[in-house]
Amino acid sequence: MAGEAGKARTVLLATEKAFAAGAVGKIESVVKEANYTLKKLENYKSKDDLLAAVADVDAMIIRSDIVDQAVLDKADKLKIVVRAGAGYDNIDLKACEAKSITAMNTPGQNANAVAELVFGMMIVSARNNFDGTSGFELVNREIAFYGFGAVARAVHKLAVGFGMKSFAYDPYIPADKIKEMGAEPVSSVAGLFDHQYVSLHVPLTDETKASINKELLMKMPKGGSLINTARTEVVHEADMIEVLKTRTDFCYLCDVAPKDIEPYKAAVGDKYGKRLIFTKKKMGAQTAEANDNAGVAAANQIVGFFEKGETRFSLKA
Amino acid sequence: MAGEAGKARTVLLATEKAFAAGAVGKIESVVKEANYTLKKLENYKSKDDLLAAVADVDAMIIRSDIVDQAVLDKADKLKIVVRAGAGYDNIDLKACEAKSITAMNTPGQNANAVAELVFGMMIVSARNNFDGTSGFELVNREIAFYGFGAVARAVHKLAVGFGMKSFAYDPYIPADKIKEMGAEPVSSVAGLFDHQYVSLHVPLTDETKASINKELLMKMPKGGSLINTARTEVVHEADMIEVLKTRTDFCYLCDVAPKDIEPYKAAVGDKYGKRLIFTKKKMGAQTAEANDNAGVAAANQIVGFFEKGETRFSLKA
Repeated sequence: MAGEAGKARTVLLATEKAFAAGAVGKIESVVKEANYTLKKLENYKSKDDLLAAVADVDAMIIRSDIVDQAVLDKADKLKIVVRAGAGYDNIDLKACEAKSITAMNTPGQNANAVAELVFGMMIVSARNNFDGTSGFELVNREIAFYGFGAVARAVHKLAVGFGMKSFAYDPYIPADKIKEMGAEPVSSVAGLFDHQYVSLHVPLTDETKASINKELLMKMPKGGSLINTARTEVVHEADMIEVLKTRTDFCYLCDVAPKDIEPYKAAVGDKYGKRLIFTKKKMGAQTAEANDNAGVAAANQIVGFFEKGETRFSLKA
Repeated sequence: MAGEAGKARTVLLATEKAFAAGAVGKIESVVKEANYTLKKLENYKSKDDLLAAVADVDAMIIRSDIVDQAVLDKADKLKIVVRAGAGYDNIDLKACEAKSITAMNTPGQNANAVAELVFGMMIVSARNNFDGTSGFELVNREIAFYGFGAVARAVHKLAVGFGMKSFAYDPYIPADKIKEMGAEPVSSVAGLFDHQYVSLHVPLTDETKASINKELLMKMPKGGSLINTARTEVVHEADMIEVLKTRTDFCYLCDVAPKDIEPYKAAVGDKYGKRLIFTKKKMGAQTAEANDNAGVAAANQIVGFFEKGETRFSLKA
């Protein structure tokens, strides 16, 4: 059980696609320090291997590995499964709940990975996709954050290094706290769109869905650029395509491409790569460092769960 | 004459391709402050316009405008011509010298423009040209500068913001001075190549020509990447192509493409954009800000020349 400290535990590292050796070493240290045993099932080829391995373990660290009813049925001692990473579609949360197994993810470990990608996209756009024509510099430009969580703050940190000015609005963070973290607080979502760059860092909710619309985008100053590393659906699709068509200075830099990117591309013509960037797949979090960090965080969360009853990153079914 | 302070002067701004309005305003302020007159010849279409305009001016600010014997023949009062920018192939220096006209350029005004481009290239490479596969982060990585002048120091400044570690070797800057500027001094050129990134910031001289060779490049650690925003010819071409072929982890990020890039591209196959980046034309210095800065610097240099006899950026024929 959570909170029963000092007991011997076995942690299964079940990774169909293994972590880098360095990360495994770090995970091993965390587990060892708690006097637990690490059992490794890396690069396994068949689900049967996984079903056999879970039988006697207290905890599991997974990546995109599937933890469904079949796995849980075999996992008689399992108390906690942690997805090393942010997305957790691969865990059957209801089945976990039914067996009183805690499921967690490891949010925030990819903040710098996303932030560096944001700067990559901004520079490529500002320098016209390296086409040899004269662009502009980021120094002294303004960036405004919608949401000021871990990722936004990591982007802000790099923006400071570039000599940019940061602004932020977050419905859950008071203005004085935002100021303390080095950004200028903005009192409304609309106020963010007075700045050249707006970077989205909000979850998809009823309130945010399709909330970034024509009215906001048309308000942006010359060279206005929307950066979306959050969720596609936060942006009103038809409005975005219309704005890309009508405002030839406007740019959309996006790590969360919609299913059909062709209408967007058609709107900017030969300016794809400058006015419009879609990375292939959502890749902001995909770095060796982010993956390693997530693995170590997962191990730490398991130890915290057993030794101190910590459940901060528990997922709800 | 230089150093004859307090006299009325006329400065011609002769720009076949005009500066942005904001930059012209700043140039105008500098000139006005010195009680000089600014005469503008912007976006002119014929050389005759230029020949007519130079007749009565004491100084000239140009961009890529041609200042040859024909222009100088008409410029009876001209004492100084300043190229707003770094390259000065467009000025006939011998003809200037023969008429005792001082010619200058405005070096260093593009340092941040180049530095931001360097980071753009590094991130695109580290993130696999945004192809959706897992890359790596720049945080905690090491960058070593060959030459630690204005551009290298601007790259270093951004590197600090990214949480990178900087190293530098410059034959003309003592180790303690390098340390003072925040980089770790390295005692030899070869020592630079122990770090993942090496960025070249040296002029082309007999000593530097083709000096970056196979021996140095093969020495680089895993993921070794050479950044060249200096001069193509500093790198040994045949060696570079060989290293690109043999070391599949090695990257070459280059703003000064050689004439024939095909053998380089052939060496990396489908990894162009990740292992090899060539911007189109040398574009590091090409930003609105760098151009504006250069114009203002040119105006300041003209005032300094007449009022204080400053000749720091004089060009030799």
